[in-house]
Amino acid sequence: MTRISPLIDRLITALQVLPGVGPKTATRMALNILQHNRKGGDALARALGKAIADVQRCVNCRTLSETELCETCANPKRDASLLCIVESPADIVAIEQSGTYSGRYYVLHGRLSPIDGVGPDELGLTNIAARVRERGVEEVILATNPTVEGEATAHYISEALENSRAKLTRIAHGVPLGGELEYIDGGTIAHAIQGRRTLF
Amino acid sequence: MTRISPLIDRLITALQVLPGVGPKTATRMALNILQHNRKGGDALARALGKAIADVQRCVNCRTLSETELCETCANPKRDASLLCIVESPADIVAIEQSGTYSGRYYVLHGRLSPIDGVGPDELGLTNIAARVRERGVEEVILATNPTVEGEATAHYISEALENSRAKLTRIAHGVPLGGELEYIDGGTIAHAIQGRRTLF
Repeated sequence: MTRISPLIDRLITALQVLPGVGPKTATRMALNILQHNRKGGDALARALGKAIADVQRCVNCRTLSETELCETCANPKRDASLLCIVESPADIVAIEQSGTYSGRYYVLHGRLSPIDGVGPDELGLTNIAARVRERGVEEVILATNPTVEGEATAHYISEALENSRAKLTRIAHGVPLGGELEYIDGGTIAHAIQGRRTLF
Repeated sequence: MTRISPLIDRLITALQVLPGVGPKTATRMALNILQHNRKGGDALARALGKAIADVQRCVNCRTLSETELCETCANPKRDASLLCIVESPADIVAIEQSGTYSGRYYVLHGRLSPIDGVGPDELGLTNIAARVRERGVEEVILATNPTVEGEATAHYISEALENSRAKLTRIAHGVPLGGELEYIDGGTIAHAIQGRRTLF
């Protein structure tokens, strides 16, 4: 990489912690901010520092939040009888954007992966059955990703909750809207056929 | 946009000062840093704050630098008889990466654009003739972009330097390497034909 000046080079390197940002994009970002938007850059530096210092995990659902209870957990309008288990806070954002869910969440911050040393403890699954029982959850929705590890995690949770009285569901897997059968992988099509619904 | 928490929302908004980053990418970046790379995020916040505070313009060539004289201007090995005039520091990076130029630079930080109130003063062109004469520049290379405004800027500089003894050149415009004639716009092809070189 071409060296510009020590401070700018350091900024270019630092920008590459952002997902999807390589040396070329980082160079463009650094020069653009320094040339055209120092005020915005300054606001970014402060917002980033403050978020890193203050954002922790919600004590209840483990999502990212700067308050002890996140906004979803603190919101009395959310249906406490529904609990949706997701892998990451980004999954919550995606589900919230669909506007079709009004229950609570539980964030694993990962998926079971013994090779990487990620077991039930790391995912906050140790007392999941007690938690579901104590909080009066009536339905647990497993929304882990349809990958090998995501499925293994869903399977583990389903076994852990076997004796709870809560209903257990898994989000549907199938052909996405706008998807064309012709271009969709066999695994997805198998799910779509196995999960077919009766129309009449 | 889905709200997550005030601090995270502020970070997502702040990240959008980066070129090419919209709400969706910013959300992914913010959550990714807070979940997986707080140390890197902290380094980024500090590098950004420090660069914004300390990086100014080189007093000689106007490129971005935290020292009074940038590294190129301070380097005695660079050929002071060659002066390449570019629109932005990013253009210097691009030229340096090609490894084919060993002279000095002069950065305009823009191009002539009367509608936006950008005149010769804003581009540091007021004393360009005196500067070229006093520093013993033998060749001035005009490397502004081949846009209407870039060409107008090049034209303005060529008039300003008319009576200097320096040779004036313009970088070549034509078919880029790997480009296929079939897909190249007419303007570029016109340049390529007008600028054709004699082989024998």
